[in-house]
Amino acid sequence: MTLKRYLLSMAAAFAILFLATGASAKQPKYVFFFLGDGMAGPQIQAAEAYLTTVNGGDATAAADLLKPENRLNMSKMTVAGLQTTCDAHRLITDSAASATAFACGLKTLSGVIGMDETGTVRYKSIAHLAHESGMKVGILSSVSLNHATPAAYYASVPGRSDMNAIAAQMAGSGYEFFGGGGLARPDSPVDVWRLLDANGYKVLKDRESILSLKEIPRDRVVCINPWLQDASAMPYDIDRLNTGNTNLSLAEMTGVAVANLSGSQKKARRDDGFFIMVEGGKIDWACHANDARAAVGDILDLDNAVGVALDFYRKHPLQTLIVVTGDHETGGMTIGHATTAYTADYDRLMNQKNSFQYFGDNEWKPHRAKTKGGICGGHLDADNLASDTVMLGWMETVFGLEWADLNEYQQEKLEDAYDQSMCGSNDNSSAENTYLYGDCNPIIVTITHVLNERAGIGWTSYSHTGVPVPVFAQGPEAHLFAGFYDNTDIARKLAKVMNLGDLPVKK
Amino acid sequence: MTLKRYLLSMAAAFAILFLATGASAKQPKYVFFFLGDGMAGPQIQAAEAYLTTVNGGDATAAADLLKPENRLNMSKMTVAGLQTTCDAHRLITDSAASATAFACGLKTLSGVIGMDETGTVRYKSIAHLAHESGMKVGILSSVSLNHATPAAYYASVPGRSDMNAIAAQMAGSGYEFFGGGGLARPDSPVDVWRLLDANGYKVLKDRESILSLKEIPRDRVVCINPWLQDASAMPYDIDRLNTGNTNLSLAEMTGVAVANLSGSQKKARRDDGFFIMVEGGKIDWACHANDARAAVGDILDLDNAVGVALDFYRKHPLQTLIVVTGDHETGGMTIGHATTAYTADYDRLMNQKNSFQYFGDNEWKPHRAKTKGGICGGHLDADNLASDTVMLGWMETVFGLEWADLNEYQQEKLEDAYDQSMCGSNDNSSAENTYLYGDCNPIIVTITHVLNERAGIGWTSYSHTGVPVPVFAQGPEAHLFAGFYDNTDIARKLAKVMNLGDLPVKK
Repeated sequence: MTLKRYLLSMAAAFAILFLATGASAKQPKYVFFFLGDGMAGPQIQAAEAYLTTVNGGDATAAADLLKPENRLNMSKMTVAGLQTTCDAHRLITDSAASATAFACGLKTLSGVIGMDETGTVRYKSIAHLAHESGMKVGILSSVSLNHATPAAYYASVPGRSDMNAIAAQMAGSGYEFFGGGGLARPDSPVDVWRLLDANGYKVLKDRESILSLKEIPRDRVVCINPWLQDASAMPYDIDRLNTGNTNLSLAEMTGVAVANLSGSQKKARRDDGFFIMVEGGKIDWACHANDARAAVGDILDLDNAVGVALDFYRKHPLQTLIVVTGDHETGGMTIGHATTAYTADYDRLMNQKNSFQYFGDNEWKPHRAKTKGGICGGHLDADNLASDTVMLGWMETVFGLEWADLNEYQQEKLEDAYDQSMCGSNDNSSAENTYLYGDCNPIIVTITHVLNERAGIGWTSYSHTGVPVPVFAQGPEAHLFAGFYDNTDIARKLAKVMNLGDLPVKK
Repeated sequence: MTLKRYLLSMAAAFAILFLATGASAKQPKYVFFFLGDGMAGPQIQAAEAYLTTVNGGDATAAADLLKPENRLNMSKMTVAGLQTTCDAHRLITDSAASATAFACGLKTLSGVIGMDETGTVRYKSIAHLAHESGMKVGILSSVSLNHATPAAYYASVPGRSDMNAIAAQMAGSGYEFFGGGGLARPDSPVDVWRLLDANGYKVLKDRESILSLKEIPRDRVVCINPWLQDASAMPYDIDRLNTGNTNLSLAEMTGVAVANLSGSQKKARRDDGFFIMVEGGKIDWACHANDARAAVGDILDLDNAVGVALDFYRKHPLQTLIVVTGDHETGGMTIGHATTAYTADYDRLMNQKNSFQYFGDNEWKPHRAKTKGGICGGHLDADNLASDTVMLGWMETVFGLEWADLNEYQQEKLEDAYDQSMCGSNDNSSAENTYLYGDCNPIIVTITHVLNERAGIGWTSYSHTGVPVPVFAQGPEAHLFAGFYDNTDIARKLAKVMNLGDLPVKK
């Protein structure tokens, strides 16, 4: 075979492969970016092992663990990659710096959103650039819509805590769809509700109105779930139905976003496509609290949202690109513990009924208010918790932990934590308490520690960690997301695919 | 543009890309498989942050961390993927089951090598099949050559502990090259040394003779480093030069293997290629002991061995495929700790001079034998360690830990561990001791815990864990290793690339 013939035969083979796989060199019209805040390899594996258990399988058997129905949607996507997550000056990033990396293709400091390290130069996000190019934009998050990750797609502020300024920039973005949690600090100095109204946004705050967007789309809409649990965020998925079916899950909200953005384009008889960013923001919060079951619930909700995008992809395979990743790991979660060694028992996680947050707000706090000075009486005693039958009852009914099943060290840790939570002090050094509880409620985090370690899950931190984070992609140009690269490269790759030019781009 | 013209232009573009990247649809003649035992994402990130520090950079600054010279060779390879690692009935595998997965494409039980779950059906490894197809085979490991991972490439036994039977099968394999550590239980019931001799193997046991293979290759050779530290394994890389430059590093041994296998083919005027498996086996052992610095040293040695393969690749880019992965994570290592939160200080790891093993063998054991009953006198006292100036001196000179720098809880943990190691008991419950020390030497593992947590590294286990493990690949057909798949798929992909048929194949 001559070189020419070889080249032609190879080229033909590639062209055939090319069409057969449904790939297209043309830029995708519909782009989804899913971000699991605090979600890395351990969280994904924990969610799959839990899902296997929920589906009636054995989370310790390969035959069950590897069944397609027990894998996450993201794990089954065609392309996988890895990213480094450090910010400009820390091995361990925060969500503002990582969101700026994903949104603007720029390394910056933790705390900074959409700006450079000096906090003086403002940059456009890929959402901003996509919007300028004519695409519709939807920004969704399970935490407040002006929290760090969604913020990086529309705002530039030197400090993530300036949430009123962020919300004001959101109201000025012109993006078509916002949905999920509410707004933190919306009232002062800027009245953001008024600004949204002035800018033509309809704010919907109940399930029926939000679902109606599937039939009657709007051009500018902000969808806020009625039950906001903490810091204007949606409740954890594990708690979602505790006030009835009033909220939309993140997956349902994603379905509304897709229908609304598609529908409004149909109405206008002009379809320039869309860019949708969906953040599962409370995976991170659950992992900060070392609550594996709450984290897994929110991962499954995020993954169901990925499923919504995959359904859309199946209808528009040549035009839809989906990218899924996390911004960093949170909690130093691992799939193994000193006390369980090579064994795992994810059945135990199924016994947990509510998140640490819901339990704290609704059971622990009133109980503490009522019994403080009663049971512990201000003295540190090894049997304070063992004498609190109400608390022991909740440990069993809410977390599936029976006191008699626990070993001596688990009981000792729980007694110390109970004293710290109930009496405000225990007999540990303050350094030990920092190690054992971080900033968490001592008794609640110790309950989830003990439950998690009995399931075979360990934690090393109450903060983020610096491990590489998986990336998954499917659709045209998805192959660009294979390999091991930096988080800023994700924005660059998306900008390339969407034909938005070289990043970063100054505002 | 018509569809035909579009197809032709795309096909031409692919053909050009194809040649430019040096890929080839032809099966690679030279295949390297590198296996970091116990190496997953956290270990890789720790090694890169440490390497950044060693190279004079700032391991907390993106500008330094992401410099190519501070990244591992494996991280810079063109393809990345992820694998699940569960064995047939456990979420958390051992190295025998995972090696059988990589070698034979078969899920089996932990402990089983090259056989099915029943321990009755024997399977051929890809090395075995490659050898039958005419390729030369080299098997290298930093642990004993009949340890679980190398064993799966030539042996079938129902229990990994039957190391004499494994060694006998090694001697009967006919493979051309073995190198690294020695043999465990080589004498009885089978005299493996005699068997090796009978089968035409030359056993070399000194640096000069082994290096001479680069000039004068042999057809069948077993290269055993002279200094075997523990269980017939090579010393940890951090300890390697402690007895002078008598040993070859794993990277040097890989260079010898390549030269010998290439040279012997040149001599025979027939080159059917080779398959070389290189295991960094003590990454796992260091992680079982929660000794980050020792683990990082062995990761860097393995990565230098990958560098040797990449040098070969650059000479034969169209014929050389390199795949690098780990078999599971060990230790529940994370890149963050409760006490350091968002900070990291890898400079601290540079102060460690020897592995936990070397320190235990050469300093702790003689010290304990000499002073037992002296300093602690059998009583448990909070100041036993604080009074042992020899031990405090070693903590400073060998591990860079100054007593006065440690917080109250770190001192308390070290005192408790000292009592347990020195006096055989402390005032903890046995459940707490299991959690704090596993099967490790209590004082030594507590020293590495404290050092590691001060650097910003946490551990949750003394066993393996179940997180997904990265895979890296470069060379022809490397794209097959992109995506997220099972560890058994790695063997199947290699068999496909090497044209060895469908796995598993019965013996």
